[in-house]
Amino acid sequence: MTVSPPMTAFQPQDPDFERRVRASFARQGAMTWLGARLLEVLPGACTVGLPYRAELTQQDGFFHAGIIATVADTAAGYAAFTLMPAEASVLSIEFKQNMMAPAVGDTLIARGLVDRAGRTITVVTAEVFVVADGIEKKVAKMQATMMCLQRSEPAQR
Amino acid sequence: MTVSPPMTAFQPQDPDFERRVRASFARQGAMTWLGARLLEVLPGACTVGLPYRAELTQQDGFFHAGIIATVADTAAGYAAFTLMPAEASVLSIEFKQNMMAPAVGDTLIARGLVDRAGRTITVVTAEVFVVADGIEKKVAKMQATMMCLQRSEPAQR
Amino acid sequence: MTVSPPMTAFQPQDPDFERRVRASFARQGAMTWLGARLLEVLPGACTVGLPYRAELTQQDGFFHAGIIATVADTAAGYAAFTLMPAEASVLSIEFKQNMMAPAVGDTLIARGLVDRAGRTITVVTAEVFVVADGIEKKVAKMQATMMCLQRSEPAQR
Amino acid sequence: MTVSPPMTAFQPQDPDFERRVRASFARQGAMTWLGARLLEVLPGACTVGLPYRAELTQQDGFFHAGIIATVADTAAGYAAFTLMPAEASVLSIEFKQNMMAPAVGDTLIARGLVDRAGRTITVVTAEVFVVADGIEKKVAKMQATMMCLQRSEPAQR
Repeated sequence: MTVSPPMTAFQPQDPDFERRVRASFARQGAMTWLGARLLEVLPGACTVGLPYRAELTQQDGFFHAGIIATVADTAAGYAAFTLMPAEASVLSIEFKQNMMAPAVGDTLIARGLVDRAGRTITVVTAEVFVVADGIEKKVAKMQATMMCLQRSEPAQR
Repeated sequence: MTVSPPMTAFQPQDPDFERRVRASFARQGAMTWLGARLLEVLPGACTVGLPYRAELTQQDGFFHAGIIATVADTAAGYAAFTLMPAEASVLSIEFKQNMMAPAVGDTLIARGLVDRAGRTITVVTAEVFVVADGIEKKVAKMQATMMCLQRSEPAQR
Repeated sequence: MTVSPPMTAFQPQDPDFERRVRASFARQGAMTWLGARLLEVLPGACTVGLPYRAELTQQDGFFHAGIIATVADTAAGYAAFTLMPAEASVLSIEFKQNMMAPAVGDTLIARGLVDRAGRTITVVTAEVFVVADGIEKKVAKMQATMMCLQRSEPAQR
Repeated sequence: MTVSPPMTAFQPQDPDFERRVRASFARQGAMTWLGARLLEVLPGACTVGLPYRAELTQQDGFFHAGIIATVADTAAGYAAFTLMPAEASVLSIEFKQNMMAPAVGDTLIARGLVDRAGRTITVVTAEVFVVADGIEKKVAKMQATMMCLQRSEPAQR
């Protein structure tokens, strides 16, 4: 049996990008604590899932917009990270998120996809869905700016 | 002894705004779970604090940008909510957050302050600080759009 | 000969949406002055074109980021407007734009496409391209929030 | 007579920052064409003014949100530029602008002020006012991300 190569238009600089992303994800205290899982890692793309719990909600019982931003920023950041050199690290410069519908459902799914990967700056879009009764509904959209830090540089913006 | 009235330029429509904000905050599963506390509630302003825990971090051990957004969005939303009518509810339409410095410290403090309160749309800025060794450092800034929903309306954007 | 119906997933409330958009565009002093043209008006989508002139540039001779935002906001606003009721008007609440590449070329093309149309709030993405030597290059991406104002309401946010 | 030094908290790296900003502003085709003027240049701050003309309006006769963004982005970019090294250039990475009130008035005034100046990334807030009957009204607020490009680097993001 052969496995198809990941289907995105991007060419990673580091063929070992997936291992690098999974190792970094595993170091994130917040991801473990939230119960988030790294579902897919492709060149320029990353998907993160988060099962519903009452601890993740705002005053109406929906997923909190900030929790949505936490998984969206993570999916966006790792989508950018897949295209960076092996020795680089990734930094969130900023993000903007629109909430589109009440986030009620069993699972939150955030899909980050790179719009444009530059030497220093990468622009990423993340769309966030809830799955309820087996149906996906889009609940938020984020446009984010990520920065590539070379190891040789001081960790400064 | 007399207590000075809260010092902001805004006039709340509902004199009981603080009780309303505190009751809504208490219903937020995410706030309890994070360990966040509602520190100050003034007309058009709200401050939320969050003590450091390893569970709130990204891969380098700093507060996660999404966790920062969670407290910033909450401070911004309640700052807007203080100026809404008694029977209204508040909805986050969108927010944009810039990260400014690594968020390393004992406590995260988010201060939301209304820029402009409209009938339907309220614009709010939230600044987020970490306190480390007794010194505050600004780590993020959010510009957010909040919506006032009248109870008589269906809960739609 | 028959003409295919416009190909988007949205159903306009007002079948006369295109005429309404074109009439509003014609009233925009800025569009005439810039030399912008309304290229396409479909349900939930709108395309605006702007030929290059030295008067539209920043210090390096590229299209100015603000001029790019002017056509992107216009394409986004009218994309939203196509789905609004006949008697409504549209208001830009906010937008966020990432610049992706130097905007050097003969023509700027902004394509607005609705992400989610609500009763009051519509979320729109606009992508901006330059055409140079017959090749399109993406130079900017905007995520915008538009508001539907019913005629019966006072013109307030 | 002595002249007080500019009153902001920032220390410019290049004492000749004002001349550098004014020379760059003068090269902007869009600024001349709009009729914009550079009013104030201080360390970390910049003010741009734009007199009203019917050519700068949207469909209701107000200043177009994109024209507002053009002067806000310019004020924000030059506020950042004042703090950069003599041989650097400045690039708009992204901006987000909220419209707060109809921009009706004789003059538009955009004030950019640096929030945080980093080695590569500078975060700036610009507030935009209209002056009508001698009274200033805030009509928009922008939060922007600017990038410092060293001359020795290729002109890439």
